[in-house]
This record gives sequence, structure tokens and C-alpha cells, in this order.
Amino acid sequence: MAKNLTTREEDYSKWYNELVVKADLAENSGVRGCMVIKPYGYAIWEKMQAELDRMFKETGHQNAYFPLFIPKSYFSKEASHVDGFAKECAVVTHYRLKTDESGKGIIVDPDAKLEEELIVRPTSETIIWDTYRKWVQSYRDLPILVNQWANVVRWEMRTRLFLRTAEFLWQEGHTAHATEAEAIAEAEQMLRVYAEFVENYMAIPVIKGLKTESERFAGALETYCIEALMQDGKALQAGTSHFLGQNFAKAFDVKFTDKEGKMDYVWATSWGVSTRLMGALVMTHSDDNGLVLPPNLAPDQVVIVPIYRNDEQFDAVSEVAKMIMNDLRASGLRVKFDDRDTHKPGWKFNEYELKGVPVRIAIGPKDVEKGTVEIARRDTLEKEFVKTEDVVDTIGALMDEIQKNLYKKASDFRSNNTTTVDSYDEFKEVLNTSGGFILAHWDGSAETEERIKNETKATIRCIPLDDNTQPGSCMVTGKPSSRRVLFARAY
Amino acid sequence: MAKNLTTREEDYSKWYNELVVKADLAENSGVRGCMVIKPYGYAIWEKMQAELDRMFKETGHQNAYFPLFIPKSYFSKEASHVDGFAKECAVVTHYRLKTDESGKGIIVDPDAKLEEELIVRPTSETIIWDTYRKWVQSYRDLPILVNQWANVVRWEMRTRLFLRTAEFLWQEGHTAHATEAEAIAEAEQMLRVYAEFVENYMAIPVIKGLKTESERFAGALETYCIEALMQDGKALQAGTSHFLGQNFAKAFDVKFTDKEGKMDYVWATSWGVSTRLMGALVMTHSDDNGLVLPPNLAPDQVVIVPIYRNDEQFDAVSEVAKMIMNDLRASGLRVKFDDRDTHKPGWKFNEYELKGVPVRIAIGPKDVEKGTVEIARRDTLEKEFVKTEDVVDTIGALMDEIQKNLYKKASDFRSNNTTTVDSYDEFKEVLNTSGGFILAHWDGSAETEERIKNETKATIRCIPLDDNTQPGSCMVTGKPSSRRVLFARAY
Repeated sequence: MAKNLTTREEDYSKWYNELVVKADLAENSGVRGCMVIKPYGYAIWEKMQAELDRMFKETGHQNAYFPLFIPKSYFSKEASHVDGFAKECAVVTHYRLKTDESGKGIIVDPDAKLEEELIVRPTSETIIWDTYRKWVQSYRDLPILVNQWANVVRWEMRTRLFLRTAEFLWQEGHTAHATEAEAIAEAEQMLRVYAEFVENYMAIPVIKGLKTESERFAGALETYCIEALMQDGKALQAGTSHFLGQNFAKAFDVKFTDKEGKMDYVWATSWGVSTRLMGALVMTHSDDNGLVLPPNLAPDQVVIVPIYRNDEQFDAVSEVAKMIMNDLRASGLRVKFDDRDTHKPGWKFNEYELKGVPVRIAIGPKDVEKGTVEIARRDTLEKEFVKTEDVVDTIGALMDEIQKNLYKKASDFRSNNTTTVDSYDEFKEVLNTSGGFILAHWDGSAETEERIKNETKATIRCIPLDDNTQPGSCMVTGKPSSRRVLFARAY
Repeated sequence: MAKNLTTREEDYSKWYNELVVKADLAENSGVRGCMVIKPYGYAIWEKMQAELDRMFKETGHQNAYFPLFIPKSYFSKEASHVDGFAKECAVVTHYRLKTDESGKGIIVDPDAKLEEELIVRPTSETIIWDTYRKWVQSYRDLPILVNQWANVVRWEMRTRLFLRTAEFLWQEGHTAHATEAEAIAEAEQMLRVYAEFVENYMAIPVIKGLKTESERFAGALETYCIEALMQDGKALQAGTSHFLGQNFAKAFDVKFTDKEGKMDYVWATSWGVSTRLMGALVMTHSDDNGLVLPPNLAPDQVVIVPIYRNDEQFDAVSEVAKMIMNDLRASGLRVKFDDRDTHKPGWKFNEYELKGVPVRIAIGPKDVEKGTVEIARRDTLEKEFVKTEDVVDTIGALMDEIQKNLYKKASDFRSNNTTTVDSYDEFKEVLNTSGGFILAHWDGSAETEERIKNETKATIRCIPLDDNTQPGSCMVTGKPSSRRVLFARAY
């Protein structure tokens, strides 16, 4: 391999780690568990942000910003929340450093201890609901439809770039409503928004569902999720939307007067997706040659590489290249013309393959003569010669085709790796061979769920929100089951 | 006052604090020194971000993201930097909480102490240059032109919304170059970008200059700045751009091989603006009725308020209002039609005056009959009746006019409050009466600068980068001075 990339078959996990670094997406930093998101990786994240932000605004949400720090006592106010989040976290205890006795080093100043420790937010429900108390008096102040783009910190012991990092970037929506029905509708709406985004922009098919009680967000009455399947047969939770009931309103005393003048606690939702999605993007589409990016999120959708041996050839090729670049840009595409003379065409071909640019155009002196260019697709690695005057139309159509093809490939992969099983033995066999999604009956008890998890490392990814509600009997206990649920080993 | 707003004359500082809260820009949180940026305030900040981000990209910069935490030892590597930044800061010492003995409270787990404390970034030079070491080998890897949008924390003792908060939002550019000249050119370019943004979008005139040695950024060889004058005669530093020489490259051992094969340390710049600009925006243009926003940054540029007594009137008025809204939106403007029946027109007039919406359109039944609407400017409070068919043209022109008028008013104010003085007595007298910018001769010594600061609380805001380089003698010591410098009391 020119890229020296471990293949997926050799070691999927190693392939992923290498690819993320070699394709310039992210790297580990000098700070345990914290990543550096490199410009190319951040450019993809920015595209994701822009689309999501647009979708949030179209559904009536506004952005705001809440403090990074949360006083320790806030976490104690919602009992289940503290267990879920405040345990493994970054704790600020002091607010000053000073020079040590030698005068050379610096130490924490013991005289600058905070009265109350501050937690670096692992999620912001507590600080936000402490704020909403001031914002809500009457039904006229509702709904509050607010989103925040922020960094959060969870002290993970085993970290992997994008998939699990101590600090990560995300958005967290926090909404407040006058009625239960409205809050549930909001949580469901945002699940749909996430599914649309992941399917239409990331080209990743997802299964919408509900988490079981034991997998719910700490403090939620119901957690909606979208689950995707990676190429190694493991599931990845791509986004969650929580119906929080009145739990946080009660913990932070957020009441409102309704139209009839009665006081009630406010109903809540929260929902989020994170830079984890970058991991899902890489793991779903990429191959042994490198990244494969869907055109809708690729920072460069098209790259033009000139092929030449001398200045004269370079001039002729450049002229055509620039014309094509301008035409493509005018048609709304993101195009790069790589005319650097410090790197050979072969090196550039490898580089853009590694970086997943959807379409590469190569132009040499012979192409100029013939009035053609060579177009190469990243997804299928197919090449074809196209007349110069047809380039804009061809590539415009290709963008759609590649986007659809990636979705279809991922969708086919998922179909081929979703198994319906009826016995626990079959369940274990599938897990130990192909993996993938498994649809099986479960008796609805936390005990059985826990037993399956301990024995197989597979978890219930979700109770799907679809119409396949055929009853049956639990594959483990034989007790009645109202419908099959979705199992998998997961990231 | 309908808004119960303290007037500027009564108490400028109180006026500012009240206005920021009442206009829904920001409020204090339950966390000492940390603010909540409310949706309306954040919408303005988003507009600022979008324009700045576009300008950064147009000048070749890319965004990236670096860790929130910085190991304590990193700060010791650049001597002057630690004094400037690492002293008053948030220190993370532990990574876990646990339930206390009573089982009810939560405490910091003494067994989860970090080996090395982490500082919440007050600025990111150290962590970024620790990363750049891995990115740079040869001149081919340069320049690195990277920007980061992030939150930072400086443990300020006395805080004020936007102007000085423990946590604030900002962007920090960090660039690496092969030559000193290129780094200086970059620092100067970004100063120009900041000045353009603040003048053209925020409508605030600025003076570009260099900081004196004692006012320089910790670790910089040269700090460029833009200085603005607020309505109370105090200066506000609106942005800084630093030429860092090879200081950070040496501290973090970042070397490159040049074209001739020689090794050298990399040259650096950093530059930033923050949510402090929100404070400058409020303090420059607003009046005793509330905010005044320049059209280029106003979340809503036009608001339409319907006036009616019954449903029939409402329908007739709404029809015209919606038509105008659609036409204005089609012309590219941000328009809100406030058809809420929960609030009276008078309340809405006050509300949008308080929130600084540049133009208000009022439409009543009589207007519908006559084919006119009432247009009110927020900046001058002038009203006029305009024919319905002329609304789009009139308002399009008004947007430009208001933007220019705000700049001119601020510019005139600054001219009227800039005094050239030749004696120290005169200097003190101006400071104690009108305040404002003072141009005076200074002998160039840190001692004189310090003496002036101690005796008058005025600081040298900058050594202006203009052509007024007439020599003279220091107003305090009488020693020779090569040019007048800019003094003021400052935020």
C-alpha cells in the first residue's frame, strides 16, 4: 500500500486509528484523552455543524451559550443524573498557581482553594435548568427552544479519536414546554432531524428507536436514539433525544402559570450529537485506500490534478484546469486545483484518495489536444474520459450518484448484516461470526438484558420505532415478548 | 422611562449593566464570573463570527480545534507567558467525585488526584505550539494558518458582562512561518482584518497601533491593537494581533529545514477577538431607550408591528404586512413580523426600541386605506410615512444610511473627545473633565508610563500606526519624544 495503511481485514481497529491520523482528521494531544482536530477534520465537522444548525433553526430553535463550569452541588439535585454523569469528570478545585520555593517551578496555590468545587460540564442540563428558572414565569414564556454548540468533558479511561475522548465537541438542545405532549413531540421531532441529517448528508442509514430503561440517559423518562452499523459489524449510537419529563424542572424548581392560572412544573427535552459522528462517517464508508467522503460533506468535492513535464505543458494544462474549476465553482461545487510543483501527480492521486475527495480530474497535454479530461470516482475507483464541455454536467450528476451510491452500499451492508434469530444459541453464533444487527425477542426485563450483556457483550441498541410488532417469546427465558428488539455489540 | 433604564448621564456603568440584561443579551449565571449569553445576544455574536470567519478564510486561514486543558508544565516553558497567564486560572486537580459517608452528598474523591494538574486554557499558545512541533519539518509545511473558535477562562476577580468575565468566547489565530518578515506581515494583515470588521460591521472607528513593551501580550515581541472610544470617554481594546518572534518555537522546540537545508526555529503570530466586542457594540451606539444595532449585525433588521382593534382590521393589516415582509426578505433583509396577540403595539414599540432593531414598520387600518406605512429609524428615532410600493427601496437605502450614520456619529464623538495636550497638568485636567483619547508626548520609558498610570489611571493605549510623527518632548519629564502616543483610561 502506498499509504502504508493497515487493511480493514488485517485489523479494523488499527485501520481506523491509522486512517484518522493519516488523513489529517485528528491526532492525540499531549493531554490525556484529549484530541486535536486538524484543519481537514475540522472542515468536515464545520459542514456537519452548518447543516445541523440550519435544520435546528428551521425547526424554530435559537442558539445560546451557558457556562463551562457547573457547581458541584447542582449535580446532587437530580438524583439519577449525578450517578450518570458527575462521577468521572474534571474537577476544578483551585483558581491560582504560584511560583514554588525554588523560584523555577509553578505549583497550585493552596490559599486559592474554591469554596465549592466546579465540574467541567459533562452535559448542561443542571446549569441550564438553573437558568430557565429565571426565564419562565408564565405559559407566555414557553416554549424555550434553545441549542448550544459547546465542548464537554467526560473522564473516559480508554479513549479513541472521535469515538470516545475526554473532551469532545457537540451540540446540546435544551427545550422547555408547557405540556407533556409538546415535549414528547419535540423529542421525536429532533430524532427525525438527526435521522434525516445522518441519512441525507452522512449517507448512513439509521434505525430509530427507544432505549431500554437501563440504557436511558441519566434523568430521562425516555431516550430516543438512532443506531448505525459499522463495517466491522459493530453498532454505533449516532444521536440521542431525551424526553426528560418534569425531572429537571422539579430539581431546579422551574414552574409556570398556565392559561387557567394554575401552577405546574415545566416539561423538558434535551438532544445531542457530537464529534463522534466523525468516527461514524469514517467507519461507514472508508476503504483500504483511505477515506471516502459523501459529496454533501466533503470540504473539497472535486480536485483537479495537472499532469505535465515542462512549463509549456503546464501552461496549456493550467488554462483548461482553471476554466473547468471556474465553471464547476459557478455551478456551486467546492473545487480545488492542486497546481503545486512540489509534489508529483502520483503523490497527489494517493493523497486525495487517502483524503476521500469524491471526484478527481486529471488533465495532461494529450487531454488538452483531444479536448477531454479523466474523471475518477473515489467511491468505486472507476475512471472515464469525458469531453471538456461535458465536465460540469457529468460531475453535477456524479455528485448525486456518489451520494446515493454510498448510502446504498451502507444500506446493503446493513441488510446483509442484520439477522433475525429465535434462539439464544443462534444469537451467540451470529455474534461470534458475522456480528451485525440482530433482531430477537426479549422479555422486557432488566435482568435478562443484563445477563445477555454479561454473557455476550451485546446490548439492546434500541426498541425500534417501526411497524414490525409481531409478538413472540424471549430467546433467553421463553417469556412473552411484544416485539423483536435490536441487539448488537457496540462502540 | 418605559424601560426603567437608568440613563447614561445618571450612571453610565449601571446603564450598561441594566441594558445588557434587559435587552436579553446576557445575564450572570450561578457560577461566579461566568455569564449566560442569551439567544438574542448570541444571535449577534453569531453574525460577528460569520463575518470574521469569512474574512479569515478569505485570507487563507483554516479552523481547527485544540484541547481545553493544558498541562501545568507547559506554561513554565515560556517564561514571560506563565507570569501573564497561568497565575489566575482554573486548575483541574481531580477526575472523580464520589458519594460521601452519609450517602447523600458528593465529594471530590481524594484517590482520583491527577499526576499533573491541568489548567483550563486562558489562551492556547502552549498547547498549540506543542502540537505544531509534530506538524513542521520542512519549509514545505509552512506557513500554518490556523484559527480556533473556543471558550477560554481567566480567573478575573471583578467581572462585568461581556467586558470581563471568567469564561469568555473568542477566536484565536495561531500561525507559523518560515521568515520573520512573513510573520510580521501576517500580524499586520490580521490587524487590518480586525479594523475592517470593527469599522464596517460594528460601525466603530478604531485607532490601529502598537502596544508599549509593558502592555504587550505575555510572550510577544510586538503587540498590534485596535482601540475604540466608548461614550463615557473610556477606551476599549477591541482586538490584538501579536508577533511572537521565535519565542514559542524555542520553548516547544519547533524547527524546520529551509530551502537551503539549514535548520531554524519557526516564526509565530497569534491574534484574537472575543465576546468583549459585544460590550463595545453596546457601549458605542446605544442610548437611554436601549440598544442601537448596526444593520450589518442586527439579527432582525426590520420589524413589522400590526395595529388593529378587531379581527377584520387584523386580516387587512396582516395581508399588507406579509406582502411587505416577503418583498423585504426577497431583497435579502432579515425581517420579523410580530403578529402576537399577547402584546399591545405600544409594548412592542418599546421592546424593539430596547432591542435596537434598526427599522420598525407600523401598519394600521388607515395605512392600508391610504396605501402607506409608517417607518421609524432606531438610530435617529425619526418617523416617516412611505408609500407601500416604495417600502423595499426606502428600507434598502435606509440600511446603508443607518450603518453609515452610526459610524459617523461614533467618529464625530471620537473626534470631539480626542485632545492633543502638551503639559501633564493639561493632561490631568482633560482626564478629570471630559476624558476621551489624549495625544501626548512620552519619553518612551517604562518608568514614566508607570508613573502616569499610577497618578492618573490612564494608560498608553497604543503608539498609533499613522503618519503623525512629529517629534516633541515628554509632557512629564521633558525628555525627547519621537511622536505623540494615545492615552486614555480604559476598560
